[in-house]
Amino acid sequence: MKGLYYNGAGIALKDLPLPVAGAGEARIKVALAGVCRTDIEIAAGYMRFRGVLGHEFVGVVEAGEPAGWVGKRVVGEINLGCGRCAYCAAGLGRHCPERRVLGIAGKDGALAEYLTLPIANLHAVPEKMTNETAVFVEPTAACFEILEQVRLAGKTVAVLGDGKLGLIAARVLTTAAPARLVLVGKHPEKLALARASGIETVMVEDFRARVARPEEKFEAVVEATGRAEGFKLAQAAVRPRGVIVQKSTVAGSPEVDLARVVIDEVTVIGSRCGPFPPAICALAAGEVKVEDLIYRSYPLDQAVEALSAAARPGALKVLIKM
Amino acid sequence: MKGLYYNGAGIALKDLPLPVAGAGEARIKVALAGVCRTDIEIAAGYMRFRGVLGHEFVGVVEAGEPAGWVGKRVVGEINLGCGRCAYCAAGLGRHCPERRVLGIAGKDGALAEYLTLPIANLHAVPEKMTNETAVFVEPTAACFEILEQVRLAGKTVAVLGDGKLGLIAARVLTTAAPARLVLVGKHPEKLALARASGIETVMVEDFRARVARPEEKFEAVVEATGRAEGFKLAQAAVRPRGVIVQKSTVAGSPEVDLARVVIDEVTVIGSRCGPFPPAICALAAGEVKVEDLIYRSYPLDQAVEALSAAARPGALKVLIKM
Repeated sequence: MKGLYYNGAGIALKDLPLPVAGAGEARIKVALAGVCRTDIEIAAGYMRFRGVLGHEFVGVVEAGEPAGWVGKRVVGEINLGCGRCAYCAAGLGRHCPERRVLGIAGKDGALAEYLTLPIANLHAVPEKMTNETAVFVEPTAACFEILEQVRLAGKTVAVLGDGKLGLIAARVLTTAAPARLVLVGKHPEKLALARASGIETVMVEDFRARVARPEEKFEAVVEATGRAEGFKLAQAAVRPRGVIVQKSTVAGSPEVDLARVVIDEVTVIGSRCGPFPPAICALAAGEVKVEDLIYRSYPLDQAVEALSAAARPGALKVLIKM
Repeated sequence: MKGLYYNGAGIALKDLPLPVAGAGEARIKVALAGVCRTDIEIAAGYMRFRGVLGHEFVGVVEAGEPAGWVGKRVVGEINLGCGRCAYCAAGLGRHCPERRVLGIAGKDGALAEYLTLPIANLHAVPEKMTNETAVFVEPTAACFEILEQVRLAGKTVAVLGDGKLGLIAARVLTTAAPARLVLVGKHPEKLALARASGIETVMVEDFRARVARPEEKFEAVVEATGRAEGFKLAQAAVRPRGVIVQKSTVAGSPEVDLARVVIDEVTVIGSRCGPFPPAICALAAGEVKVEDLIYRSYPLDQAVEALSAAARPGALKVLIKM
């Protein structure tokens, strides 16, 4: 089969052996996969991964046990705990220190014709959901993680970053009934997408000036800029006793004013992967819309070009069709 | 009256006018005051404060309205909100952007014969409580703040730092019924004080080696080392999805691995001043003991020497008797 392979130096489409489903695993024929910023960072050496890239996908189970899953259209959770350690026993498999992660750590990913995943990681896709929506389940779930961690009902909330993650996060967080939600960005055309779904938006310079006034600060700030400077703006924007949800993973040590965290008694919560079921429900019900975030689709043969396109400043979601 | 005054360049005992209680304020004759590490930092220029140092005290109300308070022995909360802004209206006066803070910001402090404070900040001291215990109410309250912010019952908890704050914090946190609590330090004689009150202790090198193993990490870590490196150890010691309570305010930007915060979904909570009532109750009931933490008492005339003594490595609580 073909797959987009990173060998530590560069990416290339490669002919690879068909992956074999182990015990409790399914082999899935990938139908559509998404390119995430993490894939681009991995292709630049992040995580020291070697293998097939990609972790956002929708596909059809082709083989595996129990046979009931064969033929089903599925999406899949990306963390594979060892199943034996104290973390896995406590239901924290996503944080298992020995975990493998689809297309990120020790496990070939989704930018290929086939992948394997444990049956336990799979979720059936509702019949009426298009592949173009289903491929967004994983990043949408990552945004639902915020709602598992923080109660936002009745609170003032700012989402920093108008990239894919910020746009999805803003849409997901409106389902939690915040008193007010503002998406902060610097791309008028992206902010327009948010406004089209009824979300208040503001350009970052205006926002920065506004939150300099104590009464304009927010009770919760979600940092989704993907940039090291994002945390500094989040600190400037959050009210004393407020919450910063840090979504971006950025290499290096960004500037964190820890004394300010103490004096203002701010809570900083790191937020990574999230629960699939609420994401599937919200996407199926149309409460969260995503298809307007698709930038372009490429066939697998053009996967290298697809990654370049996804890396362009301002690019939204790039999809790869198998 | 005499008071220990910081003029921006150095500290000296000065003759000062008797402070006048404004509307809603009391004038308090200070009986006993404590020296906090913050006082030493302020005397080194932190917060750009000018005035009488000190914020830990017990004293007797000498004048003020309503007259019912006159003659009462009291301790006092140290933050003075403006009373007019949105923060004060929301009960967040401790975080009022215009706040003054006793001996820390815009308000003469407790290392003097007299101080003034709003009646609203005062708490009566139970009759049987000694001054030597009552002077610890403020730092004990700061430790009870942790219990307002995090549920520790049934959790594994590590307290980093065997200074005054760490020792009091460990004693306060045991009242929250953690599954296990360990105090981490580097002074055998201080750790012995904790062990004498039934607290498990460990030397920092052993702790560092131990928490390198995933199964030995803690669900909650309280950083009370007073040092920039403390946060790094807290990150190494906390379990994925765990909580770091940051107590130390340290100047400069300590090393914070924010990507690790996200990947491990750690919660970092800044924690500053706390509620007086539970601290008074716990000290009155003997649930939290503090008098063994007294290092030396000095008369006010020797306040400059007292601050030098408090700054010595390994010094525990220095008191100043008026």
